[in-house]
This record gives sequence, structure tokens and C-alpha cells, in this order.
Amino acid sequence: MIYLDNSATTQPYPEVLHTYKEVSEKIWGNPSSLHRLGTQATRILDASRKQIADLLGKSPEEIFFTSGGTEGDNWVIKGVAFEKQAFGKHIIVSAIEHPAVKESALWLKTQGFEVDLAPVTKDGFVDLEALEKLIRSDTILVSIMAVNNEIGAIQPIPQISKLLEDRPTISFHVDAVQAVGKIPTEMYLTPRVDFATFSSHKFHGPRGVGFIYKKASKRLTPLLTGGGQEQDLRSTTENVAGIAATAKALRMTMERFEVVNNRQKAMKQVILKALATYPDITVFSGQENFTDSIITFGLKNVRGEVVVHAFESHEIYISTTSACSSKAGKPAGTLLAMGVPQKLAQTAVRVSLGDDTDMSQIEHFLTILGQIDHQTQKIR
Amino acid sequence: MIYLDNSATTQPYPEVLHTYKEVSEKIWGNPSSLHRLGTQATRILDASRKQIADLLGKSPEEIFFTSGGTEGDNWVIKGVAFEKQAFGKHIIVSAIEHPAVKESALWLKTQGFEVDLAPVTKDGFVDLEALEKLIRSDTILVSIMAVNNEIGAIQPIPQISKLLEDRPTISFHVDAVQAVGKIPTEMYLTPRVDFATFSSHKFHGPRGVGFIYKKASKRLTPLLTGGGQEQDLRSTTENVAGIAATAKALRMTMERFEVVNNRQKAMKQVILKALATYPDITVFSGQENFTDSIITFGLKNVRGEVVVHAFESHEIYISTTSACSSKAGKPAGTLLAMGVPQKLAQTAVRVSLGDDTDMSQIEHFLTILGQIDHQTQKIR
Repeated sequence: MIYLDNSATTQPYPEVLHTYKEVSEKIWGNPSSLHRLGTQATRILDASRKQIADLLGKSPEEIFFTSGGTEGDNWVIKGVAFEKQAFGKHIIVSAIEHPAVKESALWLKTQGFEVDLAPVTKDGFVDLEALEKLIRSDTILVSIMAVNNEIGAIQPIPQISKLLEDRPTISFHVDAVQAVGKIPTEMYLTPRVDFATFSSHKFHGPRGVGFIYKKASKRLTPLLTGGGQEQDLRSTTENVAGIAATAKALRMTMERFEVVNNRQKAMKQVILKALATYPDITVFSGQENFTDSIITFGLKNVRGEVVVHAFESHEIYISTTSACSSKAGKPAGTLLAMGVPQKLAQTAVRVSLGDDTDMSQIEHFLTILGQIDHQTQKIR
Repeated sequence: MIYLDNSATTQPYPEVLHTYKEVSEKIWGNPSSLHRLGTQATRILDASRKQIADLLGKSPEEIFFTSGGTEGDNWVIKGVAFEKQAFGKHIIVSAIEHPAVKESALWLKTQGFEVDLAPVTKDGFVDLEALEKLIRSDTILVSIMAVNNEIGAIQPIPQISKLLEDRPTISFHVDAVQAVGKIPTEMYLTPRVDFATFSSHKFHGPRGVGFIYKKASKRLTPLLTGGGQEQDLRSTTENVAGIAATAKALRMTMERFEVVNNRQKAMKQVILKALATYPDITVFSGQENFTDSIITFGLKNVRGEVVVHAFESHEIYISTTSACSSKAGKPAGTLLAMGVPQKLAQTAVRVSLGDDTDMSQIEHFLTILGQIDHQTQKIR
């Protein structure tokens, strides 16, 4: 099996599952309990939070655990909106955000908020001039993803940070779900960023766990109210085992960053070089300011799902753009926002490399691509 | 170690952790993926949902997975409110609800909703007449817990169901977090109940997983919007391993129901009989319409946390009422709502029996109680 769908989900590291099991078996007390079992659990929780904060160069009290990227995005978008509605009801998110951000913002329209979608260039980057023009005196939130999940475009977070420098009343949220382990932290967690969202299962951690970064000085209305956990901002009995496993996954991912990225850079070059030899293949992922982990392309007149299933029969697993929209059969929202015609967008497939993807797998993938290209000639 | 804090959290069954590990290692694909790894994951997800639905006598499409009891309660309370706000903005929850329900309802007051707290009798049961009087033409939601987490009082869900029978526009939510494995399903999941909340770690399942029951005909605004999972009502990549482990934990708990409950009934009798011999102990948990798993009592003039720590030094783990409020040092909300004076309420400690608690442990617990009662005589 060759798994090239790492942007959809990653295989948990064995060490991560080991930590999960150990903690579940031995430290299963409720951190809210007054007795020793509670104290033990709290200690693991604190240590995990500190480790994550240290890895990201932030303070432990700025890290809040969640059930994943979707909850993180929902919490920040809706939480900032409810928190700041007295000051303004205008929100800007980019046109290529993950549905967890975009749908959260659009839902707020039912609560009287106004939402603008910041357009992107034909290459897939948020248009800075257009973004600046959308900013109003009642804008309370700007949310831009760090790395686009469909084509791998690295969004200009440092430049947007500069743009928002003199506008301190606007909260700046970055969906960093696809950024961890792909680009250096300072490219998405600038000092201007107020909130950022993370999801464990995208970096070999457990499913159903994530966290957000919230700048200490920023306020946020809770999405989950109740028992008062997480500084009374996110109630629920803490998933201590999942959190400890998340800290381990993040540490391992950060440690492997350079080695993995250098390997992926080489593999992406090989893939792009090969794709360029096919006259009827369109490549949607560029090189400059793109992650090396994602390569999105399309075979002329062949729908993406046909290509996915063709690869599947060779036990090679790729994707039609994002997993979240693939079952709904929707074309890639990012490509449409870039101005790619719908028919061409529907051909898109995404190859997303993992920590353990190696060159021999890429060579086999390219061999099979040649066969699929040949076979699909007839049906075009 | 003798663990008598099972209402705070339970130790995961070894079989449950085994399932979690197996699925995490072998079926780690994203259910939204079009390829075979996605299909495999979807199959596990569907099977788990069906098993849970079967165990509860409901349909699979009425079960929605969450990150736990707090999310479930928040989702239903806030989701019903947002869904039905055009029809009315009045909500009733009991005065003894878990904070996940109560705080969610109170937060809605910031959004223009009106909230009434239904009072309870001096024994800890929702007062049916008082509840009926609170119902208005613009009432959209009534939320009553099935089993109170602080004293074990089984709330009259069948009677409230009857009360609401001719009021079909009122959504009826039951927080069943403390009910699973403690009382028969029909005592809290009557045909009139529209929504119910469940939490895996209360029945030996994994932390960070839960589910809600939503009657097929009922609408609910999502709390987590995004990729469209769970019938587009609860987005996020599904925690397949945690969900499969939850299904296993529920099956095992239901299978053991009778054996465990008979054993707990005998142990509760022994405890109550012993407590009755102490002139300066007040017992807050009754017998009729109380679960056998929870016994709450207080030593005159001794704060609950002193008693908790005294037991802790003998490696016996009990709790001051609910785990969620114990760290905050708040007295039991349930006892105050029953009219127990604050000073007396502050003496309360909760003993909550588990699946594996046995009579020898209870005998040891009672021996230590005797010692603690004796030792604390001096400080009273």
C-alpha cells in the first residue's frame, strides 16, 4: 500500500498510540478530582500543555485543548463574534478557507453578522490589496488559513500581520491545521496572530483531539460551557490520554521537520518534472510559496474520482482535493476561487506526502500514473 | 487502592482500550476519503452507530457522535434554542442540572432567551407541579437530567414525558450521562424524549467521546459547522477508534447491568445501615428512586474535602459531590437547591460505586470511615 492522502489524515505514530494506552491504563483519573488520581492526571495535563507551548514558543496558559480542528475553528470564529458583537459585526475570511471556518462565518450571518470572503489570486494566494479594501471600521475578525489544504499554497500570514499591525481591535485568526510540520512556526504564528487552530490527527496524533492558541490578552466566548475546565473557557472532562499523545506527536513531528521536508522537497521535484511531460495534465500546485507535501493536478477531461479509483486498484491512495468535500462530490472550492473553470476543477486530484513517504513509492506512483494516463486516453 | 469515585470518571475496560488500539492501528483512514481506507473506516463507524442504536432501541440515524457529555449538552441546549428562536425564547432546565446544561441555558440569556430553573423537592426530585406552572406558550425546551450526579436521585422522566405529551412543540432533552448502566433505558429514554446526552468515560469508554440521541423528526442547529459529517449536523473528522471503543463499552456495560446493579444494591444497603449508626452523619441520598451507585453523606461540621483527603491517605478515593465543581470549592448545587443549609451542604462527600467495586472494599471503606469519624471528633 502507498498512502498519499496525508492531508486527509495521517497514521498515528506507534509511540503516540503507546502513550495513549499507557496514560489510559495508568492515569485515568479525572483532573477535576481533589484526590491523588486527579492530581496525577492534572500533572500529565500540565506537562503536555507546557510541552506544546514550548514547541510553539508560546505560554502554557495560551494553549486550550479541543476535540480537533473543526471545534477550534468554530470556537474562534463564533467565540470572537459573540465576544465582540457590541463593537462590530463584520467578519472577513478568505474565499479558500476550510469549511470549518467558512461555514462558521456564514452561520453567523443568521445571527446578524456580515461576512466578506477575501478573494485569492489565480495562483491561490489571498490578494492583499483586496483584503485591505474589505476592512471596515466595524471589522472584528480576519481569519486566513496558513496552508491551503487543497493545493498547498502558503498564505502570506506575515504580510497580513503587517497589514493588521495598526488595527489592534481586529482579531486575527489563523487556521494552522495543515501548517504544522510543513512550514516553520514563525511563518504562521507571528506576534500579530491572536488565535490559531491545530488538529492532532494531521500530524500523526490521535483522532478527536486538537488545540487552539489564544493570545493571553485576548478574550473569547466559550463554545462549550459547563464544569469550568481550561480556564473556564472550554468545559468538559479533559481527554488526558489524547492530550498526552498529542504532545508526543507534535514533538516528534517538529523533530523530524527538517529531514522530512528535505525529502518531500526532492519528491515534489520528481513528481512535478514527471507531470510536466504529460501534455494533458494540468498542475494546480505551484513551487514558490507552496508546501512540498501537496501536489494537486488533473488529467484533462477525466473526473478526479475516476483517477482516485484507478490508483486505488493499485493500492495507491490519493484524494480528490479535500477529504471533507470529496464525498459530497463538490469540486475544489479553492480552485473555483482561483478562477479555474468548473470542468477543469473537477479533474483535480491531490497527492499529499507523509513523513514516511519515500522515493521508491513516488517512482511506483509515477509508473501507475503513466498507465492510468494511457488507459484513460480512450474515454476522453 | 479502592476507587469509589466512579461518577467522576470510570477506568476504561481493557477490552475497550484494546479496540481503540486495534482500530487506531489498522483502520485509521478518514471516513470522508473516497478510497478503500475511507470505506473501511466508514464501515466501522456505521457498525458502531448501529450497535449503540440497537442497545438503546433507537435508529442509527438518530445517534450523533460528539466529544463527550459537555458538548452533547451544549449542542442540544444551544442548538434547539437557535433552531426554534422564531417560535419562542423561553427555556426550562431543572435547578439541579449539571453545569454543562445549566451554564449553556444561562449563556443563552445573553442572546435574549429567558431561562427558568425548575425547583426540586427537599428529597432532590424535580417538582412536577412547579414544573408545569413554569411552562409558557413560548417555551421551546425543557431539559431534565435522568440521574442526578451529586446524590443519585432518579428524576421522574416518565412523568415529565406525560406532562409534555400534549405539548409537542416543546423539545424535551434528557441528560443521561449518569443514567447509562444505572437504570433501565426506558426510565430515561421514553418515546416523548426528543434528545438525550451520553458520555463514554462514565461507562468505562474512552475519554473525549460521547453521543447524543436526536429523534429523527426533530431539527437541531449544529454547534460545529464545517465538512458536513454526521448528516451535516456535527462536522469534524470522525474519531473512529474512540467511537468503536464507545460501542464496545456500552455493550459491555449493558450486558453487566443486572449483575452489577444487584451487587451495588447490596453494597448500598450495607453502607446505609452503617451510616445510620453514626449520630453525627447526615445521609443525603435516599433509597426509593435513587440509584444504588451513589451514596452522598456528610460528617457534622467537617468539610467534605477534609474527609476526601482523610480517605485518600488510606488509598480510598471518594469525592466532594461532583468532580466538576470540586476544584472550584463550590458546595453541591443540588443540595442547596434541595434547601440544605450551606454549612451542612459543605460537609457532603460522594461515594460512587463502580462495576468492579466489591463488598470487601466496602467493608474496608466502612472501617476507615469509623477511624475518620473518631479522629475528626476533636476538630468539630
